[in-house]
Amino acid sequence: MPEPKRSLCPVACTLDLIGDRWTLLVIRDMMFFGKQRFEEFLESPEGISTNILANRLKLLEELGLAEKQPYSNHARRMNYHLTETGKSLRPVLKVITAWGLKHIANTQIPQSHLLDTSTSKATEP
Amino acid sequence: MPEPKRSLCPVACTLDLIGDRWTLLVIRDMMFFGKQRFEEFLESPEGISTNILANRLKLLEELGLAEKQPYSNHARRMNYHLTETGKSLRPVLKVITAWGLKHIANTQIPQSHLLDTSTSKATEP
Repeated sequence: MPEPKRSLCPVACTLDLIGDRWTLLVIRDMMFFGKQRFEEFLESPEGISTNILANRLKLLEELGLAEKQPYSNHARRMNYHLTETGKSLRPVLKVITAWGLKHIANTQIPQSHLLDTSTSKATEP
Repeated sequence: MPEPKRSLCPVACTLDLIGDRWTLLVIRDMMFFGKQRFEEFLESPEGISTNILANRLKLLEELGLAEKQPYSNHARRMNYHLTETGKSLRPVLKVITAWGLKHIANTQIPQSHLLDTSTSKATEP
């Protein structure tokens, strides 16, 4: 993890790393929807663009929050999955989920959500 | 609270409202440091600019997360404080604080932090 920038405050430092509109959504997709491939992230309802997605996957790797590995015999096709540090963001995502469900009208959890599973593997619920 | 935009996901919707590098820091200042006045927010170590601060205070009012009221006999000088909905973000800030302290090197809680008080009033710890 990089050194603090704006201040020593853990909130400010966390926001410096993942405090934007997209990064936590890519983490959400791995953590709660078992997504692993570039094309799977693109299919999420928010419509992330390819360049933002590529940037955020690279960022997550640099931060040690996600790792990639080739899948099957396609050496240039990558699977992405959360590291242990990435998985440690689960309580952050859960409390944000709970707040949004309670305070923002018409929000809901999709049926494909992997409710309370402890891994980010792509298994159906 | 406004209607969802990018999707119905509570995480995406929460990020649409407060998912930027500054909004949660203004909420932090009210919640954990008892700050109420424009000048007090400017003094925080992250060095928020006057225009970003004015924008975020207005946003927090529009979202119903904070309210302003004139203080003393200066009709144009305002105090800002969190509404009940704003205070409901306490678990979000606490879990982000805990994550940052654990995973980002050299982060720390300032001594002026109002540890575990339940209000945002400007009292010394």
